Amino acid sequence: MKEKRTLMLPGPTPIPERARLAGATEMIGHREVECEELLKEVVDGLKYVFQTENDVLVLTCSGTGGLEGSITNTLSRGDKVLSLCTGAFGERYATIAEKYGLEVERLDVSWGEAVDPKRVEEKLESYKEGEIKAILMTHNETSTGVINHPEPIGKLARKYNCLLLIDAVSSLAGIELKTDKWGADVVVTSSQKALMTPPGLCLVSVSHRALKAYETSDLPKFYLDFKRAKDRYDAKNQTPATPAISVLYVLREVLRDIKEEGLENVFKRHEIVTKAIRLSMKAIGLELLVDDEVASKTVTAVRLPEGISYSVLRSNLKDKYNVYITGSKGQLQGKVFRIGHLGNVSRMDILSTISALEFVLLDLGFELELGAGLAAAQKVFYEEERS
Amino acid sequence: MKEKRTLMLPGPTPIPERARLAGATEMIGHREVECEELLKEVVDGLKYVFQTENDVLVLTCSGTGGLEGSITNTLSRGDKVLSLCTGAFGERYATIAEKYGLEVERLDVSWGEAVDPKRVEEKLESYKEGEIKAILMTHNETSTGVINHPEPIGKLARKYNCLLLIDAVSSLAGIELKTDKWGADVVVTSSQKALMTPPGLCLVSVSHRALKAYETSDLPKFYLDFKRAKDRYDAKNQTPATPAISVLYVLREVLRDIKEEGLENVFKRHEIVTKAIRLSMKAIGLELLVDDEVASKTVTAVRLPEGISYSVLRSNLKDKYNVYITGSKGQLQGKVFRIGHLGNVSRMDILSTISALEFVLLDLGFELELGAGLAAAQKVFYEEERS
Repeated sequence: MKEKRTLMLPGPTPIPERARLAGATEMIGHREVECEELLKEVVDGLKYVFQTENDVLVLTCSGTGGLEGSITNTLSRGDKVLSLCTGAFGERYATIAEKYGLEVERLDVSWGEAVDPKRVEEKLESYKEGEIKAILMTHNETSTGVINHPEPIGKLARKYNCLLLIDAVSSLAGIELKTDKWGADVVVTSSQKALMTPPGLCLVSVSHRALKAYETSDLPKFYLDFKRAKDRYDAKNQTPATPAISVLYVLREVLRDIKEEGLENVFKRHEIVTKAIRLSMKAIGLELLVDDEVASKTVTAVRLPEGISYSVLRSNLKDKYNVYITGSKGQLQGKVFRIGHLGNVSRMDILSTISALEFVLLDLGFELELGAGLAAAQKVFYEEERS
Repeated sequence: MKEKRTLMLPGPTPIPERARLAGATEMIGHREVECEELLKEVVDGLKYVFQTENDVLVLTCSGTGGLEGSITNTLSRGDKVLSLCTGAFGERYATIAEKYGLEVERLDVSWGEAVDPKRVEEKLESYKEGEIKAILMTHNETSTGVINHPEPIGKLARKYNCLLLIDAVSSLAGIELKTDKWGADVVVTSSQKALMTPPGLCLVSVSHRALKAYETSDLPKFYLDFKRAKDRYDAKNQTPATPAISVLYVLREVLRDIKEEGLENVFKRHEIVTKAIRLSMKAIGLELLVDDEVASKTVTAVRLPEGISYSVLRSNLKDKYNVYITGSKGQLQGKVFRIGHLGNVSRMDILSTISALEFVLLDLGFELELGAGLAAAQKVFYEEERS
């Protein structure tokens, strides 16, 4: 008998059964009232999750498309932006900006650390007033498993009068992000992460400041034009082009679930899972890449022990236990493995993963006490739920 | 009891049951071998449908995104292109080109007529050699229900040494399009039309000439960059960003079905359905917008009879019979209704639609002989299958 799949990737993530089946609902026309109602319910649900009263746009593309749109809709050729690079996804954001002819100033942070707002302020101080048009930041740096806190950066964006564009692809609906309160001008996420939906949709909140910036932005855009999307939605609760309707069906169900669970409880659940994973890794004798203070609540990077190859670890977990983990990129390639724990990941999924990891590591000659990791995680679940 | 839905739109189209349910298959990682195999099978199936040995790229976006990509990946700012405008979608293609700073020369054709290759040649002759960099054409003009034949335009593209970019969104897999043989450099279609799949994927074939043109194209692109997509696929059978996996699940099933039916039979089926609809409309006493010679095999536009309002006709069909038809755009708004008959549309769907139309028209005071349209369609089905 093959084990059930335990998908512990930082996206795509497992989809709740009921929502997944909703994706197979009969097709409808995208200009029909049923589709308008579908989109409206999704957008309203997203506003709750984004914690925003701004517009939330539904784009049919991956998160990368939304990140591109965050730049092409608010900036102009030659504009200078400050990109806070804490890993591979921060780099990606900067690369997109460069592709569109922006002057990208990088604040490079060692991989595994979070952005220090003081360094950001020093950097901003070093430019002429108004020279930096936008700050690009990655809320949750998936490649390292680090959270960058948007709140202080939002304050700096106001102080230095620039936009704050946030890549929240692997954080939104898993880690607290108060879009309006923290002053985020564009927040981009995608469907296949903590939103527990198949890939295909990108969700973007856009502030009044960002819409104002759109008016003077001269970068070319059409398919990913935010204003076209906003105008069509405002007029008719529609999208300019045909949206990924079957993915919307799933997202609607998931958003109902999130509403029912309550956003605070969703965040709390992600925190407990994170704590369980981190303590269990330590109990196994593994070393975590990042400190507790900056640790992501959606993905955890663990250093590979001496002599254990990533590809062997990964294929053993997959082939013997149907447990999917992943590696990392760039300078961390081959040095860490990462466990995604966002969205529809249950306590039992975590326990399965830890157990499989113990089996495989032991087989590969790593010394550990069988069950130590499991017990550490169990203890977290047991106590947190009774506290 | 509510009637079953009969979705007779020119997209999204009804999805075969088995394929639709395949979309609810468990989620997988986009960097896993299972996803690579999925993508490979889809791309191979698409090459069969596109009748091409060129690259076929799988983009997560609507057809509009692919049309934008066809321009941004092959052309440069200020390039002159010839846009063959036969309706709303030809206009759309020209608009996208303009948005990206191209100089668009339009060959305007009356709505309801097809492009005359002689006029195209005259137009091309009127420019300096090599001045026109690309011809933009709409294979099947959805807004009017007219087919423009790509073959003679392909010959002109070679003679005048320019690219041929084809919007085949509402034609591919419904109407013959010999991509390689006819010299189409970029062909764009989307999943929710004759491919009978939910919206969310855009499929694009790219010729060697188009890839050559990419090298000198200076328009900015990232998410819709064809070369990034090609390189990632060539290297690993992957996409640069996370693709719409659940939509790929459906598309794989549909492509298996198409392969089994055989492309020639698929085209033949669309022709029979078209004939049945056209003859039945005439038998009812309605006037078709376009002549038989240029008539689309995927969508038919019918003139609204004097005194019958489109919105009343439409809502009656929908509310009483759960039959969905649509109107048209621009200069045809309120003047015609359109029946989509592409992809998974059966003889019985056609008969349901005709019958509902007869009921509603009669109720609205239009004089007709009940059953005349039905019988005309039946006759086509009966005879064609026995010929």
